[in-house]
Amino acid sequence: MAYTIAREPAASKKPKPPQQELGFGTHFTDHMFMMDYDAGIGWHDPRIVPYQPLVMDPAAKVFHYGQTVFEGMKAFRAKDGRIRLFRPDAHLSRMNRSNVRLSVPLLDEELVLEALRQLILADRDWVPGTEGTSLYIRPFIIATEPLLGVAPSRQYRLIVILSPVGAYYAEGIRPVRIHVEPDYVRAVAGGVGAAKTSGNYAAGLKAQEEASKLGYAQVMWLDGVHRKYIEEVGSMNVFFRLGETVVTPALSGSILAGVTRDSVIRLLRHWGIAVEERSLSIDELVEAHRAGTLLEAFGTGTAAVVSPIGELQWQGEPQVIGGGVTGALAKRLYDAVTGIQRGSESDPFGWMVDLI
Amino acid sequence: MAYTIAREPAASKKPKPPQQELGFGTHFTDHMFMMDYDAGIGWHDPRIVPYQPLVMDPAAKVFHYGQTVFEGMKAFRAKDGRIRLFRPDAHLSRMNRSNVRLSVPLLDEELVLEALRQLILADRDWVPGTEGTSLYIRPFIIATEPLLGVAPSRQYRLIVILSPVGAYYAEGIRPVRIHVEPDYVRAVAGGVGAAKTSGNYAAGLKAQEEASKLGYAQVMWLDGVHRKYIEEVGSMNVFFRLGETVVTPALSGSILAGVTRDSVIRLLRHWGIAVEERSLSIDELVEAHRAGTLLEAFGTGTAAVVSPIGELQWQGEPQVIGGGVTGALAKRLYDAVTGIQRGSESDPFGWMVDLI
Repeated sequence: MAYTIAREPAASKKPKPPQQELGFGTHFTDHMFMMDYDAGIGWHDPRIVPYQPLVMDPAAKVFHYGQTVFEGMKAFRAKDGRIRLFRPDAHLSRMNRSNVRLSVPLLDEELVLEALRQLILADRDWVPGTEGTSLYIRPFIIATEPLLGVAPSRQYRLIVILSPVGAYYAEGIRPVRIHVEPDYVRAVAGGVGAAKTSGNYAAGLKAQEEASKLGYAQVMWLDGVHRKYIEEVGSMNVFFRLGETVVTPALSGSILAGVTRDSVIRLLRHWGIAVEERSLSIDELVEAHRAGTLLEAFGTGTAAVVSPIGELQWQGEPQVIGGGVTGALAKRLYDAVTGIQRGSESDPFGWMVDLI
Repeated sequence: MAYTIAREPAASKKPKPPQQELGFGTHFTDHMFMMDYDAGIGWHDPRIVPYQPLVMDPAAKVFHYGQTVFEGMKAFRAKDGRIRLFRPDAHLSRMNRSNVRLSVPLLDEELVLEALRQLILADRDWVPGTEGTSLYIRPFIIATEPLLGVAPSRQYRLIVILSPVGAYYAEGIRPVRIHVEPDYVRAVAGGVGAAKTSGNYAAGLKAQEEASKLGYAQVMWLDGVHRKYIEEVGSMNVFFRLGETVVTPALSGSILAGVTRDSVIRLLRHWGIAVEERSLSIDELVEAHRAGTLLEAFGTGTAAVVSPIGELQWQGEPQVIGGGVTGALAKRLYDAVTGIQRGSESDPFGWMVDLI
């Protein structure tokens, strides 16, 4: 099926920042994609326009009731110059699962993929090519109906913005210290924790801020019912190497089904390493640490790919993991995923999608 | 302390809708209030400007991470023409409690109260005077920093918009049917359920939509840990008359500390009626219904004031309450609160604040 996406080219192009000073989500490209939804009409007017401010009624529901969904994915410039997307199908199908949970109308995933293609091509000069860099893609939907009644909006806008991002690890991959959060809860089963929606991130800010003041990079969330089962680390999924088995929390309904989480599980199994998706308590972790079988811990997510954990702080007791240095498995996974993304490794699962 | 609030009057005034066609949150007045926050500067540039669209970078954090806080309060036109606010101090102190939970910088409550005064005076012609009408006041704070890193924003905007609202009960106060929600959860202790932030409302949309399809006006939320203790009804607090005692869920950390809830508790105690703030399970309610001691149920909130519940649907069993008609206590409370608001009853607690 052919889609017609209108195009209004930017009159002038912005200067591009140096590739070693990109940071994360601070610079944006020359264009953006927009598409509107009206009840009774459906999604309409897909268009690529110059990057520009949104002009919105102050009564728009997004400001008051947070009806939003977003995604985060990446495009890479391979050594041969090709631009490729990492698992866009997985991201777009997750976006529609989030839409269902937030009562947001479904997207035509093929249309959005085509929009991503055309948008990135329009801004192809912005896709960085040096080691560790990528083009971060942020599609998001916001409820725009200017009405204060609490009910699903009858108007929405899908927007896609692009941000060239730098190497997450400027000085190479290295472990972080994590505070296990005893008081604050991110999400609970029955809630929206499994959806990529803005409220989940707002809910985590306070705990993150307090942990940061204590010198920790992030918090590790425990479940909201028993306050003992591991959920996520910051806004990443989390894995533990316990002896020769890798354990990650099961998709219980309150954690995000990470695309990098899924990629890591598939790679581990491809390598013949046992992976268990199950509930895992902080007590079990502390016990494994004491017994010497907690060999590695790491978070996974689109931004960092793999983020090794060198220390977990729980009830005043620091649990140093793997001597506080990056574990062999975390490093192997990081190299494998980034190698596939950069095109320096083969792609056994067909994860990369060429832009052209 | 004197505050300087800049003023830019609207060049033209909008036509006002008829008072019998106001609805809720659909019409907005000629002016709005805005004030900005920048890290290192603090809140600055308080100003009253013509009602106008917000012009915002698509990377503004509110769209992605939902860092927001809001309030909802009302101004009334008394029979003698005076315009008065209902408990603005309680609303503004709650707004600051929400700010703490969402890592949003605190407001100077006196400045905001002065801003409300000046804004409402600028639009005083919009305050409706017929029975049941009022001017709904919506202050809200949104994170505006254009940065995709997940961390508290370093820029915010406070905006206040005004909406003349009609009688909530066009045909007089009457009971609604409520679906007791078995699957979806609104909030959990340790989360943000006690704060007035957009994500709590987004989290409730799906359950509300499904209940609505089944013919119910709203859902009654159960707690996220045991899935049996009553929390709220839709976005209202909830009360039950069990024999001669009135019971309402305690402020456990996952429900909002409603200003109307507090007002109803004070009035009941003022009248010599016993009120218990405690945990109350759905099983206890069903048992009381069976024993004939569940005499009344009603929700409370700024919009409806008191909303009687005529039926609770739980596990396929409709529990009809008080014969499905408005209970005597709900009606007495509704008349008392609206009488104080309209100035037709004395104000024993000093809740009303004159605008001038």
